[in-house]
Amino acid sequence: MRRLKRVALVGVGLIGGSFAAALRRAGAVGTIVGVDRNAQAVERATALGVIDTAAESVSEATTGADLVIVAVPVRAVAAVLHDVALALDQGAVVTDVGSTKEEVTRSAREELRALFPRFVPGHPIAGREASGVDAATPDLFKGARVVLTPVAETAPDAIELVRDCWEAAGGRVALLDASTHDRIFAAVSHLPHLLSFALVSELGSRANASELFGFAAGGFRDFTRIAASSPEMWRDVALQNRTALLAELDNYCARLAVFRELVDRADGPGLQRLMAEARASRQALGPGPRRGSSSE
Amino acid sequence: MRRLKRVALVGVGLIGGSFAAALRRAGAVGTIVGVDRNAQAVERATALGVIDTAAESVSEATTGADLVIVAVPVRAVAAVLHDVALALDQGAVVTDVGSTKEEVTRSAREELRALFPRFVPGHPIAGREASGVDAATPDLFKGARVVLTPVAETAPDAIELVRDCWEAAGGRVALLDASTHDRIFAAVSHLPHLLSFALVSELGSRANASELFGFAAGGFRDFTRIAASSPEMWRDVALQNRTALLAELDNYCARLAVFRELVDRADGPGLQRLMAEARASRQALGPGPRRGSSSE
Repeated sequence: MRRLKRVALVGVGLIGGSFAAALRRAGAVGTIVGVDRNAQAVERATALGVIDTAAESVSEATTGADLVIVAVPVRAVAAVLHDVALALDQGAVVTDVGSTKEEVTRSAREELRALFPRFVPGHPIAGREASGVDAATPDLFKGARVVLTPVAETAPDAIELVRDCWEAAGGRVALLDASTHDRIFAAVSHLPHLLSFALVSELGSRANASELFGFAAGGFRDFTRIAASSPEMWRDVALQNRTALLAELDNYCARLAVFRELVDRADGPGLQRLMAEARASRQALGPGPRRGSSSE
Repeated sequence: MRRLKRVALVGVGLIGGSFAAALRRAGAVGTIVGVDRNAQAVERATALGVIDTAAESVSEATTGADLVIVAVPVRAVAAVLHDVALALDQGAVVTDVGSTKEEVTRSAREELRALFPRFVPGHPIAGREASGVDAATPDLFKGARVVLTPVAETAPDAIELVRDCWEAAGGRVALLDASTHDRIFAAVSHLPHLLSFALVSELGSRANASELFGFAAGGFRDFTRIAASSPEMWRDVALQNRTALLAELDNYCARLAVFRELVDRADGPGLQRLMAEARASRQALGPGPRRGSSSE
């Protein structure tokens, strides 16, 4: 890939910081300029060498940058893109790292207007339980899948640049359309988070909650680990991907009703068949690395 | 605790084998006699030194034993107790390790009759992803909770003996009544297993299942780890604890409907409030050790 003179990092947290650190380690970038609403995060990022200099505003960071990485919560992307549009160089490229893609693409079209072909929507499938720039590491995306969801208007050279950057960071890039992306992640990420939050919410509301949790073992801990994720992030993801999430939730509830019916009828063979099929599917997936899911 | 002359282990698998190994290490037992429908398991247990001798039948193993440990799948407990009753010494004690307790207690009352006061229903809250006697370890119950659910007729000395054995194995013993036990574990163990099986069952049945699983990350893996558990075991648990499980499933679905409504109405503050409460509950629980759940 061509070396980037200047990268603007908007949102200096775990994901943005790790991406910047990986690009730097790969020798892919000259200067990294960071900006964040949280002044302390910018300070830490500078101290850690994740960014070279701090900008006072999104527009200031964007000015002169070859690549602008928007790594803020999905709900804040539109406002950031509004400011990016004011200062983006002609040939520069913009990308994001959000967990939902249709809504972000809609905002980008609106905010970037003529510059919209320079925007490449992205979603690295990685995270850690810790958050913030102190948890950032250039290894975060090693072997991780990264989904890009360009549209027909997206400039081929912009897609190429963002793909090169993610590959330089160790990611395995896949292209999907935004709506397929959102349906897949509604099923394998957004729905499980909602289900896990709902179980802890239900049991935690009981008068005997501490007794219940006191007897919870490994299975419960695994199942509910994702219920310790950021409420702000998952609220936004659920709302941004509402349609696909509700469809998946309804599919799930229909399947759960089948299980309920089998238990109610004491249909042992039927129950065992569905459980055995599920086990085979799950075993094929493998144990995988243990990591948090705060940024899926 | 008093040293046991002879312990009969019926069912030489992970749980029974680990309990026997822990009792031996604690110096709590002279001879351990094992019996299992699976001849290979008995052979391995002998080779590993988990048992000293093998018996040909449950009655043979029971004869002369101070303590009979029934460590077979819950559905098989009744038949084993039938044979135990034929040979149990007057002062001997019987216990089990099953995940459901009301149904087992009912069977025990029926099968053991006059000897029923010698039966102490038990449930160690421990397991590993691996199963079988080769995975047995005397450390399995170190720090683990063990629930005993004696009834009014249960002999105090029998309870004491079983409690001593579990404490010698490193367990933290709690006494509950069987119905409370079954309601608690319906909530924190049996329901999450059903929910996890249902999600993998639903997604695995799709035409694009492999695409979906291909994008699954850490959160999905955590949530669905328990869907790789034994279908036979969880079928039996679900059916034996059917009433409590269905009640918990219905409570859960009602809570899920609240989440659905909040997403549908795009009620961000409401969604965030429930998610934040759930996160606080989950964080209070701590990360805990990572272990499988096949025997919860």
